[in-house]
Amino acid sequence: MKTNKRPPASILFIFGGSGDLNYRKLTPALYNLFLDEWMPDNFAIAGIGRSSYSNEEYHGHLLDGITKFSRRKGEQNGHWKDFSQHVSYLQMDGDDAAAYHKITDLVKEKEAEWGQHPNVIFYLAVAPQLVPSIATKLGALNLCSDVHCTRIVVEKPFGHDLKSAHELNALLSSMFKEEQIFRIDHYLGKETVQNILALRFANALFEPIWNRNYIDHIQITAAESVGLEGRGGYFENSGALRDMVQNHILQILCMVAMEAPVSFDANEIRNKKVDVLNAIRRITPDKVGEHAVRGQYSKGWKKGEEVVGYREEKGVNPESAIDTFAAAKFYIDNWRWQGVPIYVRTGKYLNQKATHITLQFKSAPHNAFPSESADTWHSNKLTISIQPEMDISIRFQVKRPGQTMTLDPVDMTFSYDTEADHAPEAYETLLLDAMEGDATLFMRGDQVEAAWKVIMPILEHWESHKPADFPNYTPDSWGPEAADKLIAQEGHTWINVPSA
Amino acid sequence: MKTNKRPPASILFIFGGSGDLNYRKLTPALYNLFLDEWMPDNFAIAGIGRSSYSNEEYHGHLLDGITKFSRRKGEQNGHWKDFSQHVSYLQMDGDDAAAYHKITDLVKEKEAEWGQHPNVIFYLAVAPQLVPSIATKLGALNLCSDVHCTRIVVEKPFGHDLKSAHELNALLSSMFKEEQIFRIDHYLGKETVQNILALRFANALFEPIWNRNYIDHIQITAAESVGLEGRGGYFENSGALRDMVQNHILQILCMVAMEAPVSFDANEIRNKKVDVLNAIRRITPDKVGEHAVRGQYSKGWKKGEEVVGYREEKGVNPESAIDTFAAAKFYIDNWRWQGVPIYVRTGKYLNQKATHITLQFKSAPHNAFPSESADTWHSNKLTISIQPEMDISIRFQVKRPGQTMTLDPVDMTFSYDTEADHAPEAYETLLLDAMEGDATLFMRGDQVEAAWKVIMPILEHWESHKPADFPNYTPDSWGPEAADKLIAQEGHTWINVPSA
Repeated sequence: MKTNKRPPASILFIFGGSGDLNYRKLTPALYNLFLDEWMPDNFAIAGIGRSSYSNEEYHGHLLDGITKFSRRKGEQNGHWKDFSQHVSYLQMDGDDAAAYHKITDLVKEKEAEWGQHPNVIFYLAVAPQLVPSIATKLGALNLCSDVHCTRIVVEKPFGHDLKSAHELNALLSSMFKEEQIFRIDHYLGKETVQNILALRFANALFEPIWNRNYIDHIQITAAESVGLEGRGGYFENSGALRDMVQNHILQILCMVAMEAPVSFDANEIRNKKVDVLNAIRRITPDKVGEHAVRGQYSKGWKKGEEVVGYREEKGVNPESAIDTFAAAKFYIDNWRWQGVPIYVRTGKYLNQKATHITLQFKSAPHNAFPSESADTWHSNKLTISIQPEMDISIRFQVKRPGQTMTLDPVDMTFSYDTEADHAPEAYETLLLDAMEGDATLFMRGDQVEAAWKVIMPILEHWESHKPADFPNYTPDSWGPEAADKLIAQEGHTWINVPSA
Repeated sequence: MKTNKRPPASILFIFGGSGDLNYRKLTPALYNLFLDEWMPDNFAIAGIGRSSYSNEEYHGHLLDGITKFSRRKGEQNGHWKDFSQHVSYLQMDGDDAAAYHKITDLVKEKEAEWGQHPNVIFYLAVAPQLVPSIATKLGALNLCSDVHCTRIVVEKPFGHDLKSAHELNALLSSMFKEEQIFRIDHYLGKETVQNILALRFANALFEPIWNRNYIDHIQITAAESVGLEGRGGYFENSGALRDMVQNHILQILCMVAMEAPVSFDANEIRNKKVDVLNAIRRITPDKVGEHAVRGQYSKGWKKGEEVVGYREEKGVNPESAIDTFAAAKFYIDNWRWQGVPIYVRTGKYLNQKATHITLQFKSAPHNAFPSESADTWHSNKLTISIQPEMDISIRFQVKRPGQTMTLDPVDMTFSYDTEADHAPEAYETLLLDAMEGDATLFMRGDQVEAAWKVIMPILEHWESHKPADFPNYTPDSWGPEAADKLIAQEGHTWINVPSA
């Protein structure tokens, strides 16, 4: 993990510099790092894109994004001028090898100005199909093998399936060493997600009960209340399983289920995560129906507005078989988790925007309480809410005040809310890590492929068996009925966390 | 434990009917039971005393007590008239055997009126030296062996030492069966104390870590911020160890340390508690200095007012060796608790009025976190506050929001506070239990004697070795320095819970 010193001198090249991710997330994150005095003394940021911008126009565009999307809501725009002096725009076509000298030129210019070799970071905030071409051209530059500490940051999706992910890894590895490749999953930068490790391994209280002896099952929900938001073209080639389960949800599962690390060394943490992915029981093709459920939303009502069904969305095939909802049941075949079902679900246009993890504990082994208490007997739960609330709570039973030994379930909660304004956003954490060269929160190549291996049987089965029942859920619901059946097979029900 | 039905028809005779306990606690409790519709359909309450009162004067006296001391603060005095119809005053001298026919007469009168045999409950709210004489005369009445379900409730102190407690038990047992004898310790009626059993045995979460493998040590503090409050005469024959440790603190310790009961049957619960007392390691005379510390307060300042030292208090010997503070270290020699120190302390004129239990957990076995976190590394604690706050909280470590993996201790708290207005007072619970014949929260004879056995070595050593350093603590402190040394021997410190 990172130290509390600023990183060394760095130049960031952002491919997709005129794009949405940079506008909404990357530049606001870099500006907040600047305000929090985390940026290096010497740094430069170059946005790269095909659009035409003067530096001045580009600054105006970025400031607009900060005003709209920064957690600080523009109240600190007074420092923008200082910051923007470090930001320039390079108009170039990523496909044009001849243009890449602009990158080398800027590095040399800064080198001369600062009198030191800066870290060079390439952030590929571009469509996945552009990654191989850009990476190849970057790899051909001297920068990636000379005195510079060069890193390449690649956004998800990392591959479209196991095969393409493996090919992309092979391509990147032919030009960069693994420690130069930063595969980003922004969920891993979230404070509450990082806090899973602190909760589990900085406390003696939880780890002894964090296993099959005490835990009945685990649920991970990553529900979206919005629909496609205009991304029909992208989503038709993806789907909920690829878009959310393969990366975010499986990464969260790794942090919940991993064994205790020896240290916070990046490879140690990632080894422990890969162990989890490798231990997830492979779902055989004939069992996919028992382990996974897909859904697609119909037309309906969302927050009082009529919305169209997925198949009527712009850019979507009117007979599309793409999943806008996915739920699955996994088992981890190791000593800690043998026999503990792990249920995951995600979907668009669900009832609530909420990401949370619940550990449902087994019942107390013996109910010694008088029979009046039997009706109100509940098992314990530990819930980690990741968004929109950031909190940790334990549901347990206490005596209801009064003259009978009746029990009430109550919550003990620790909430990050009061401090949320100070909490860095995920991209701040991850950009700082990239400048420092700390890959702990990034995915290693084998980690990405191991995650693909987990979901490939489901993906393949779904692609070869068209869904008969699509659309099968209405907007504002909790997904298709089949998702309830999936979990009900073993007597469980999905746990929703009421929003505060 | 009790059912949710009203108890059968009952007559309560309160010896000490004109005394302070009845005025402040018993009648307000009975009136609240009446308001909460817990009193039997047919009931009568007779206050017994030597003072002269008409029924009307007696009612006025009791109503005054309710107005001043009831948790309901008099807002429901409108039902007083209905209630007071059930209350009468019997002027009689408890030493005068000839007067006891008044009791039998009242029972017969009510029997005729109600057409049923009521439970008959004798509540001895009198000085301990009066108990044998009254009990003997009650035992001689036919009531205690005929068709009536007769019970005798005896207030603490139950004996002055092991020998006198044993003699009192023998005397009571010669006239009453054990199930007729209700030895009261009002701490056991408190909601938060009862809740210890719910917390431990209605939740699967806590019991697995409630043992020597995970718990470093346990602390029980019962601190008073007041001084003698005019009870110098009583206290000179008692002391903090007798007044608080022998009963309240050891009873709380039993609930914290007991094995899981098979049921809530009164004898089952009490068996499990006696097991704890019997397993407490006996302190040999030569080890008392290592295991116990006594203190006596000097003159000083309390809440900005100058107060006199204990030896200057009214009714106190100017060279008194009585302890107004006591602390001790116990060990429980069984599989669950072997090697876990249990520290207890109590005292008058301490810094705070607070009763709480803290389970201090061991450190996490391995610190995998980066070195920046080492300075802020804290062990987990579970704290049960009994008064004045009623809450349960867990202190654990989370990631401090921000760019480094630094840890912060935070609390997850469940507070009874919001419901405290509805929570019955301890005496309500215990009086209702007595009417219902549920002895779970009362002390059995062997339990009382086992508790005396625990503290006798300390008591005897203190009585035979006069303290050289009294007075040794100032009002508003946390007791003598020796108490800190007692616990520091094993690297521990007393835990104070800041009041809300």
